[in-house]
Amino acid sequence: MTSNKKANREQVPNDAVFSKIRAEVLPKIRPSETERVKLEAVKAELLEAICKTAEKFHEDDIIPISVGSAERSTWLSGNHDIDLFVSYPEGVSREEMETRSRRLLMEVAKTGDSWEDRHSEHPYIHMTKSGFEVDLVPCFRVKSASDIKSAVDRTPFHCCFVKERISGKEDDVLLLKQFMKSTGVYGSEVRNGGFSGYLTELLVIWYGSFENVLQNAACWRFGQTIDIVGHQTLSHEDPLVVIDPTDPKRNVAAALSLTRFAQFINVAQRYMQSPNVDFFIKKEYAPLSVSEFKEIMKCRGTEWVGLVFDAPKKADDTLYPQLFRLENSLGEILAANDFAVMNTHSFAENKCLILFELMSKTLPPLQKRVGPPVWAADNAKSFYDKYKNAEETFSLKIKNEFLVAEIVRKYQTAESLIADKILKEAALGRHVRAAVSDGYEIIGLDEICEIKSPAFWKWMAEKLTKQI
Amino acid sequence: MTSNKKANREQVPNDAVFSKIRAEVLPKIRPSETERVKLEAVKAELLEAICKTAEKFHEDDIIPISVGSAERSTWLSGNHDIDLFVSYPEGVSREEMETRSRRLLMEVAKTGDSWEDRHSEHPYIHMTKSGFEVDLVPCFRVKSASDIKSAVDRTPFHCCFVKERISGKEDDVLLLKQFMKSTGVYGSEVRNGGFSGYLTELLVIWYGSFENVLQNAACWRFGQTIDIVGHQTLSHEDPLVVIDPTDPKRNVAAALSLTRFAQFINVAQRYMQSPNVDFFIKKEYAPLSVSEFKEIMKCRGTEWVGLVFDAPKKADDTLYPQLFRLENSLGEILAANDFAVMNTHSFAENKCLILFELMSKTLPPLQKRVGPPVWAADNAKSFYDKYKNAEETFSLKIKNEFLVAEIVRKYQTAESLIADKILKEAALGRHVRAAVSDGYEIIGLDEICEIKSPAFWKWMAEKLTKQI
Repeated sequence: MTSNKKANREQVPNDAVFSKIRAEVLPKIRPSETERVKLEAVKAELLEAICKTAEKFHEDDIIPISVGSAERSTWLSGNHDIDLFVSYPEGVSREEMETRSRRLLMEVAKTGDSWEDRHSEHPYIHMTKSGFEVDLVPCFRVKSASDIKSAVDRTPFHCCFVKERISGKEDDVLLLKQFMKSTGVYGSEVRNGGFSGYLTELLVIWYGSFENVLQNAACWRFGQTIDIVGHQTLSHEDPLVVIDPTDPKRNVAAALSLTRFAQFINVAQRYMQSPNVDFFIKKEYAPLSVSEFKEIMKCRGTEWVGLVFDAPKKADDTLYPQLFRLENSLGEILAANDFAVMNTHSFAENKCLILFELMSKTLPPLQKRVGPPVWAADNAKSFYDKYKNAEETFSLKIKNEFLVAEIVRKYQTAESLIADKILKEAALGRHVRAAVSDGYEIIGLDEICEIKSPAFWKWMAEKLTKQI
Repeated sequence: MTSNKKANREQVPNDAVFSKIRAEVLPKIRPSETERVKLEAVKAELLEAICKTAEKFHEDDIIPISVGSAERSTWLSGNHDIDLFVSYPEGVSREEMETRSRRLLMEVAKTGDSWEDRHSEHPYIHMTKSGFEVDLVPCFRVKSASDIKSAVDRTPFHCCFVKERISGKEDDVLLLKQFMKSTGVYGSEVRNGGFSGYLTELLVIWYGSFENVLQNAACWRFGQTIDIVGHQTLSHEDPLVVIDPTDPKRNVAAALSLTRFAQFINVAQRYMQSPNVDFFIKKEYAPLSVSEFKEIMKCRGTEWVGLVFDAPKKADDTLYPQLFRLENSLGEILAANDFAVMNTHSFAENKCLILFELMSKTLPPLQKRVGPPVWAADNAKSFYDKYKNAEETFSLKIKNEFLVAEIVRKYQTAESLIADKILKEAALGRHVRAAVSDGYEIIGLDEICEIKSPAFWKWMAEKLTKQI
């Protein structure tokens, strides 16, 4: 783990190049006055609706709070998210809170254009109103963020901590968010594993400016630790450790994947070496046409095996961990059975698709099985007895200290292997197991070519051709 | 390293089964009286020829010595080897010894049916006489085996040590030698890497009987150490360590390969579990016919690549280490370039042939190159600059902490890889390098099928179908 030291916390590069870039980028990403006014209006309207509804239900113990980037002027132009929390006294039971908040928030939601019930750790309501995406979230009004009753109880503390310190650095947060978005490392949902908004704000608070965040990130290594208020109590085995200033036990960057962490380091290195506005422009991938895809696959020369099943109706943060687990587990099973796995991917819309790109979908019948060392006498005997003169045995020899049998391979195609192992040995989360048990298909290049979803072909374009 | 302890040195299994096997096997492997008489006659004749020739040249300082199994009655029936050493005083220079011994021994050799000059560490003469294979070897008459001037000077000491202790156990040596021969672990030439005659004799001296050698060997592990006279002065990192009773620094089993060591342990375990005369009968492999070979290859489904070049005119003990080095080195190069290597083999007659059995001789164009971790910033930059937008690049991404490029594979066939690397990167010993530089061919299944040598097809049968 590296130390908490900052290379140059106060040294804000005041280089003309950086200033020029800021001047060019900021007007495009800073919300316009019109956007601000509109957001404030919708926010006010909703807060009022909450208060009125609470009054109607005689719930005078609740307090509505606006949290999130909308509250701290760190939202990117074009982003229309509003997060409104409704806090209940700590003494209220979880059950009572859920019942009461449901009644309250559904009433509020009806004032919107559409709404739906959602679940993460606990229920909340997502609504749209005048073009804004609004989350209405009930929480407990706890005394400290280290003493929460539900995961969301921390958010008001986060909001408060940032609000008190971010003033004057809002533009740096906007630059960092846009930079992270365009380079693919922003977004802490499980599917992405990137940086959260709160994390970007803490980095700007700590390092002082967008450029200083990047200058320091370029030198980060695994275990980089930042403890703004100096109150860390636990050690964390994560790529980046940013101790929550509102909770000494928590790593704000716990959900950041090693890949996204490394990606940010790399892009920070490249930006500091040749700063350029292009880093702030997200590369859009045009959906591949089937003929483009076929052409690419001809060049790659690899083969695809895909597993398809109906997508469980679950939020991405519930579904994707299960998909990734299955993807990894099947990838390991394929590799353990001698298939050379080049890439694995997971995609979900109405169907889930787990894709394996292999050097070859078929293997020759000859398989080498390395057995125990001769000095594990009992195991050696079992291995010998199993393969000696067995019908599937080509040869039985000793190589170095091990017994080695050459036998007829059981799974000569990736399809037969997956079909045999999927329900017996693969790692299946609850919802994915149910979906796979209901039925699945194993597909190849031809069936992939029949997929119509433009989102799939856009995703595929990125997977096959992305260059950081 | 395991200790010097013997499990049951004195406990000779007196089991009826063992006795029955001895009674059945020994008459077949013990030299007949006729054989003995004939060997003694040839030996005497040669010793006399040496003495007479020495007299003729006025060399009264030499002493002829009979060494080897012929001298200690531990030779197997049908074996017609005679080893005669001619010792020179220690004070004689190496040069003088070589000149004098050459004159002397060539005169003696002419009394035989045929003869040739041979080289190992120093020159000696091999001759045939009345059906016997005779080695005439000059050596120095040193005071002790730990103070030798040439490697062969030890042999008379070995012979002396064994002769004094083997009396009454000759049959056990014969059984052990025959057992080792038939199970493929006998023969200390580099090509084989098995047990030497001297080593088998020491094992019998130490453990007391054939059966006790096996009973103990069944429990051996890597590093098993035997120090008969308890005078070990160096530690050895070998599978089996048998300290030379005539030289405290030397491991008699230094040339024993891990594979042969393990093979002996395994076969000892199996013999002790189900003793059987079949263990004393060497399985002979009938040469494969081309159609049998093709049928086997159809079942295996693998592909062959072979490297052929003229065999350097060198003794096996010089040639094979170089062949094995090249075999290993090319195997590693193939594996490092994603070829799945199932087996590698080396064969030499008038041509050398190094064979690689691969899952496939061809690979898809897509190659994954894993680069440096992002925090090795300079290396990461070089890797990035090399592959970013390069013509051969499919994609450039970060996976975990590493930069990863998907590129067009340079070597899509094993043949092109070997042809490009053989002289540039492969490990080539002196004689093999010269031979390969003079020209080589890279062959496949069709060319292998054109090989006419019965020895090759016998060897191939064993390689493809052997079951221990």
